[in-house]
Amino acid sequence: MKKEIKELKGTFVVMVTPFDENQNINFKAMEENIEWYIEKGAHGLIPLGSTGEMASLTEKERYEVAEFVVKIVNNRLPVCIGTTSETTTKTIEYTRHAEKIGADAVLILPPYYYNPVQEEIIYHYESISDAVNIPIMIYNNPGTSGVDIQLETVLKLAEKENIKYIKESTGDIIRLREIERLGHGNIITFCGSEELVFESFFLGAQGWVSVIGNALPELSSAIYEETVINKNYKRAKEIYNALLPLCIELETSGKLVQIIKYCMDRRGVNGGNFRSPRLPLSKEYCKKIDRLLEKAVDFNKSR
Amino acid sequence: MKKEIKELKGTFVVMVTPFDENQNINFKAMEENIEWYIEKGAHGLIPLGSTGEMASLTEKERYEVAEFVVKIVNNRLPVCIGTTSETTTKTIEYTRHAEKIGADAVLILPPYYYNPVQEEIIYHYESISDAVNIPIMIYNNPGTSGVDIQLETVLKLAEKENIKYIKESTGDIIRLREIERLGHGNIITFCGSEELVFESFFLGAQGWVSVIGNALPELSSAIYEETVINKNYKRAKEIYNALLPLCIELETSGKLVQIIKYCMDRRGVNGGNFRSPRLPLSKEYCKKIDRLLEKAVDFNKSR
Amino acid sequence: MKKEIKELKGTFVVMVTPFDENQNINFKAMEENIEWYIEKGAHGLIPLGSTGEMASLTEKERYEVAEFVVKIVNNRLPVCIGTTSETTTKTIEYTRHAEKIGADAVLILPPYYYNPVQEEIIYHYESISDAVNIPIMIYNNPGTSGVDIQLETVLKLAEKENIKYIKESTGDIIRLREIERLGHGNIITFCGSEELVFESFFLGAQGWVSVIGNALPELSSAIYEETVINKNYKRAKEIYNALLPLCIELETSGKLVQIIKYCMDRRGVNGGNFRSPRLPLSKEYCKKIDRLLEKAVDFNKSR
Amino acid sequence: MKKEIKELKGTFVVMVTPFDENQNINFKAMEENIEWYIEKGAHGLIPLGSTGEMASLTEKERYEVAEFVVKIVNNRLPVCIGTTSETTTKTIEYTRHAEKIGADAVLILPPYYYNPVQEEIIYHYESISDAVNIPIMIYNNPGTSGVDIQLETVLKLAEKENIKYIKESTGDIIRLREIERLGHGNIITFCGSEELVFESFFLGAQGWVSVIGNALPELSSAIYEETVINKNYKRAKEIYNALLPLCIELETSGKLVQIIKYCMDRRGVNGGNFRSPRLPLSKEYCKKIDRLLEKAVDFNKSR
Repeated sequence: MKKEIKELKGTFVVMVTPFDENQNINFKAMEENIEWYIEKGAHGLIPLGSTGEMASLTEKERYEVAEFVVKIVNNRLPVCIGTTSETTTKTIEYTRHAEKIGADAVLILPPYYYNPVQEEIIYHYESISDAVNIPIMIYNNPGTSGVDIQLETVLKLAEKENIKYIKESTGDIIRLREIERLGHGNIITFCGSEELVFESFFLGAQGWVSVIGNALPELSSAIYEETVINKNYKRAKEIYNALLPLCIELETSGKLVQIIKYCMDRRGVNGGNFRSPRLPLSKEYCKKIDRLLEKAVDFNKSR
Repeated sequence: MKKEIKELKGTFVVMVTPFDENQNINFKAMEENIEWYIEKGAHGLIPLGSTGEMASLTEKERYEVAEFVVKIVNNRLPVCIGTTSETTTKTIEYTRHAEKIGADAVLILPPYYYNPVQEEIIYHYESISDAVNIPIMIYNNPGTSGVDIQLETVLKLAEKENIKYIKESTGDIIRLREIERLGHGNIITFCGSEELVFESFFLGAQGWVSVIGNALPELSSAIYEETVINKNYKRAKEIYNALLPLCIELETSGKLVQIIKYCMDRRGVNGGNFRSPRLPLSKEYCKKIDRLLEKAVDFNKSR
Repeated sequence: MKKEIKELKGTFVVMVTPFDENQNINFKAMEENIEWYIEKGAHGLIPLGSTGEMASLTEKERYEVAEFVVKIVNNRLPVCIGTTSETTTKTIEYTRHAEKIGADAVLILPPYYYNPVQEEIIYHYESISDAVNIPIMIYNNPGTSGVDIQLETVLKLAEKENIKYIKESTGDIIRLREIERLGHGNIITFCGSEELVFESFFLGAQGWVSVIGNALPELSSAIYEETVINKNYKRAKEIYNALLPLCIELETSGKLVQIIKYCMDRRGVNGGNFRSPRLPLSKEYCKKIDRLLEKAVDFNKSR
Repeated sequence: MKKEIKELKGTFVVMVTPFDENQNINFKAMEENIEWYIEKGAHGLIPLGSTGEMASLTEKERYEVAEFVVKIVNNRLPVCIGTTSETTTKTIEYTRHAEKIGADAVLILPPYYYNPVQEEIIYHYESISDAVNIPIMIYNNPGTSGVDIQLETVLKLAEKENIKYIKESTGDIIRLREIERLGHGNIITFCGSEELVFESFFLGAQGWVSVIGNALPELSSAIYEETVINKNYKRAKEIYNALLPLCIELETSGKLVQIIKYCMDRRGVNGGNFRSPRLPLSKEYCKKIDRLLEKAVDFNKSR
């Protein structure tokens, strides 16, 4: 039975992968997290992104996580699975698996060790697109993958029917605006930055791939609702200002995974351990994060 | 029986991995290549580097290649195996395997998806160093890995006994010179650029991790001998000038693997296919490479 | 008699300096331009900016232009004079002159040959601030001046009473937003980019230092009015989309002065010649500009 | 009477401009410096470079300095005058003046406020070349001027008879090597970096535009002699190692003028004051410089 295709919109939490003390994936913790994301109003979930330490997982673990999340969510929310891999062949394998198990979409970064040229990027995505029916979200993050999927390349890829979304993480708002302006609706933008979401929604983004949503899903979803649904920009900006100090730390510290897992632990959900060579935050830095998190939580209570 | 530790010096060919038409590793071709490298005077071999498309191989294939190269070389030359992986844990696994099968050294890039901070880089290499006895060659290539192993970090790591070498690929000759000047011999530099080798040897590098050595091992080895052994700079420069036009293409085209494999095929050895999403060179570009290669081959004949 | 201080807001045209065929300043042409800017709704004027080729003028010419513009405008609009110079001493001289002749504000880039460190930037602006009463607009354009006036530096300078404005030209919308968020109204932002003005107004900018306003002052002023005054974002975006194709050429072509002067000539006002080593646009490129300009003019007529 | 054209080679001191307490040029101090440079073995002098704070001088002062240096040197050494200006017209004026007063060459950076495109750079230098007979040294310093004079542009300009030299300050040794390799002697390279001179001489540079030569002219000239004349690389490297710690501070601190003037004062010659907004070095930093300078002076005594 072919799965009905859901339109992706809103704030999608790009989920952490919690590890136990033996560095194994803690599926029980992951299940609790999923229930919490849903309860707190997340609009969708994305396992196996950078925040999920996808490159630190084995192939077997990646299949397990994908299957587990789809099963637990059980169609209560759309699930978009990260299926990035170094070769086109392997990416197709992961993507077919995602399609088979009933995911709603896949999120794909270009090969991140090899730096492909633009025509190879086109070949990569078109080959994947041809091999599956599941909707594809391109992920452009030059800082992570070492290559920029240029504007012209994005517009070209948008011609494929199932290349429907792009997660925009260049950090340059002009790029997202130009995709919106020149894409004529052929491709839907998702903000892929922790510190450009209000601006992105204003300029037409339909969603946000959110890290902070792991720890503050109430607020990360609320900013979508106020900006896109209600167009209450004043209210949205208050929420944004409550989120920004933490979001800026996530984007600029080089410690994104450690910070978000720490914040989750502080909120009573399961950040858990992370994989090597990630090192824990210093005590002093934790205090800073405590202060920022507390302020955001207080803001949320006072809403 | 513990393996005797060989000093690494000279031009080490960072080997391509030839694939057959079904995208499987062509071990017969690889064996022929190895015999050719040895016959033509290579001073050492490095399988499973970037040129070997290591990130496009499965774990199983990486073990097979490592074992195969060590077996075929059979101690005729030093073999330094690329054991880079995303986590410290997995890198130790690969490194222990290399040690166990009798490799002479390992070449390790920092995690290339996650961008570790300097203290995590130190943790990564020190953990590996503590887990094995085999000599380690650090590989600093910010363009590929997204992080710079800063000068101070290199000097700190050089204090570990088995962190003996660094492949320097920043593209900035000042870095190599400063490692030489401030490292006081605690760490030995290998040039990791196709277009800085003459300069690097002059400034104290003891070796070169050479891509062009796959196709022109006679010349890539000769430049070491003339510069470092004979100190015949005039002769060395003639060789360098013969190599540079091709080397510059390798470094600046974004098509390194395709070019070097094409050159090997033209010289009658086995470049073979490459893995997706790499695309073949255009016919026009091939003609340009033909001209540059022919000139270099002619130069070699006339020596 | 001390001049009353006007609040600067809206779209300020950063005026070209028209030259005649002998490379002399054409003051008659400049006067006609001024009348046209005013008639078409400009909210303010800025002579002696980069667009005015200020660094290509002699000291004497700079004094003449400043005096001429103030005289012709005759308080019909606020005039903000570019008084940037290489030394603090000379900048104070230019700034005192601007104050004396009755300008409403000054626009000051850091020294653009010497790259001062942050404490020298603070010293520079504070010294100028102490020497005059006229309101100062800081101009941050790392691409032009070679230094970034960092966020912390801006916030520090904002404490001075007459440092009231900043022209933000980093090209990064995050910077402007953070000045707004952390500046608490101590400093007022002006957009200093041709392709971020809608976004900047939305995030709190009170004005725009506009190049395109030389050729399309009706539209450049209208975008301020629709976005900031009327908050009619839909209408504003239509105007923005009409301006953007030309604005993007201005920002990205490296030919800003030549393009804007060409556009002015096409609209029947006085772009005039430019100073060496600027070279004219190619005929083919002019055709492209013609098409973009025509579309924008048509859009304006249809409003 | 037409001046005989001298070949420029060796270490040219790019002279500081000493200011007195009233910020006026101290010509007496400058004269003493010149005598000291000559006595200590400088191979040539360059007034009105960046180190000479040329952009902080008035037009009148620039003419005075040029005339003064030529007069005092009185043909004992070659004098190359910095004649950079923002427009082609003004640069020609300065260059004609340099020619008229009997300078041996001129040093010219592209316009440093306006960022010309390559064809405008070509127009700029060719126009100047056509207007004078004096030999021209192109000055390529993208960090200072904001534009790179690309390799192809340099090779094109080298076709003009009196464009004879290039001061190479990209900081990338590859550029200098490629100019040497592809320039076929049509253009002579001068190292324009404080920390690449040994490498540059080895690769064919005929001279060095040296800042440190203001304070340690004995050593800055000796490195030329040992490397280029005697080809005693071992000896040259010892000298280099003695100079490098100070040279690295000059290049990387952002305080070049202040450091070199401080070093001159410490050695008993005339650094003098500098122009605003330059601020003095901190006491602590002075101590660091003291240590580095002392070591270099001791090394010099022990030769």
